Amino acid sequence: MKGNLIIISAPSGTGKTTILKKLFAEVKGVTFSVSHTTRAPRAGEQDGVDYYFVDQQTFRRMRAENAFLEWAEVHGNYYGTSKKEVDRHLRQGLDVFLDIDVQGARQVREAAGRECFSIFIVPPSWEEQESRLTGRGTDSAATIRLRLQNARTEMQDADRYDYLIVNDTVEKAVDALRAIIIAERCRTRRDRDGRPIDILRNSDCGLRI
Amino acid sequence: MKGNLIIISAPSGTGKTTILKKLFAEVKGVTFSVSHTTRAPRAGEQDGVDYYFVDQQTFRRMRAENAFLEWAEVHGNYYGTSKKEVDRHLRQGLDVFLDIDVQGARQVREAAGRECFSIFIVPPSWEEQESRLTGRGTDSAATIRLRLQNARTEMQDADRYDYLIVNDTVEKAVDALRAIIIAERCRTRRDRDGRPIDILRNSDCGLRI
Repeated sequence: MKGNLIIISAPSGTGKTTILKKLFAEVKGVTFSVSHTTRAPRAGEQDGVDYYFVDQQTFRRMRAENAFLEWAEVHGNYYGTSKKEVDRHLRQGLDVFLDIDVQGARQVREAAGRECFSIFIVPPSWEEQESRLTGRGTDSAATIRLRLQNARTEMQDADRYDYLIVNDTVEKAVDALRAIIIAERCRTRRDRDGRPIDILRNSDCGLRI
Repeated sequence: MKGNLIIISAPSGTGKTTILKKLFAEVKGVTFSVSHTTRAPRAGEQDGVDYYFVDQQTFRRMRAENAFLEWAEVHGNYYGTSKKEVDRHLRQGLDVFLDIDVQGARQVREAAGRECFSIFIVPPSWEEQESRLTGRGTDSAATIRLRLQNARTEMQDADRYDYLIVNDTVEKAVDALRAIIIAERCRTRRDRDGRPIDILRNSDCGLRI
């Protein structure tokens, strides 16, 4: 049975990385899609593991061939999610996480329609988020201000998401995320007209009816 | 925040009762709706706990007033789910389970539309279901045959449900059911046109944004 395509986004300082790390340690059958990038590999980064490192020409060709589910340019470098890469995992029955921002999420929804669902993680409050960003001790006051500003802009996209998780405590957030994964595996998939497709898809549970 | 209205159905011999008992012991914030019936109370049954026991005249009046979300006649007795009763629980923030058959489910979907979701529990196989029904030792061969026949008819409604749980093992089925409850609490509610309503409804998690 095909896996689910899952968009996950969160304003910075929400704790998404911690939540995903714990989720992947707990739940079977989930994976990340490895992105393509034109950025140079950093020390320790492996091709095919951290990213697929490609040159600009290759990236542009792939983009022209509509090979990306979503792509973005950040600081002069291109990043993209290959359809082929995602599809390979889905056909193996794995749920594929796309850890992308609100703009990437819009592109994927456009391309995948009902064939994906999306999760937005929000901090319990602005105060808590600011204190988390400050607590990291890695960013300047100006950077934190910028991140908070971006977070407020990103929050305006919250209502485009299918699920909203408030990261009040990490444990509760991971539990909610895990619940969403399991629940969606039981969900009746429907086409654009609401007709069920692939009704007994979770028959790998042993259903022989 | 308002709770969710949850339809749950299963062909007989699927293990629904066991699953629901375990779920209610594990999950907070869920309740059953107490039905109205014209049937006489059995020994030990309490009015307002097991059923609201009413006379035929009262039931008919309520039905005429459109007071029921769904109702049915079984062996000359009437059974119905009162809208008022359900609404009272929902407004308290409780998730309300309606343990009803496929025909009741159709009525509730008609009345509640997007304001409810539905779960169908299926046995892992016909063989397993037959052996469960036989294993009870409470029913005659003829009754079991009838129950299996009904089960096959009910299975034809499976694709009208939002979620399908295969009761392979009770533990997995309870986990899936629990996951659906938690996931739906995080779900963005939408109106008929797909517009989000009540977007930050799970703000009782402490969201102050």
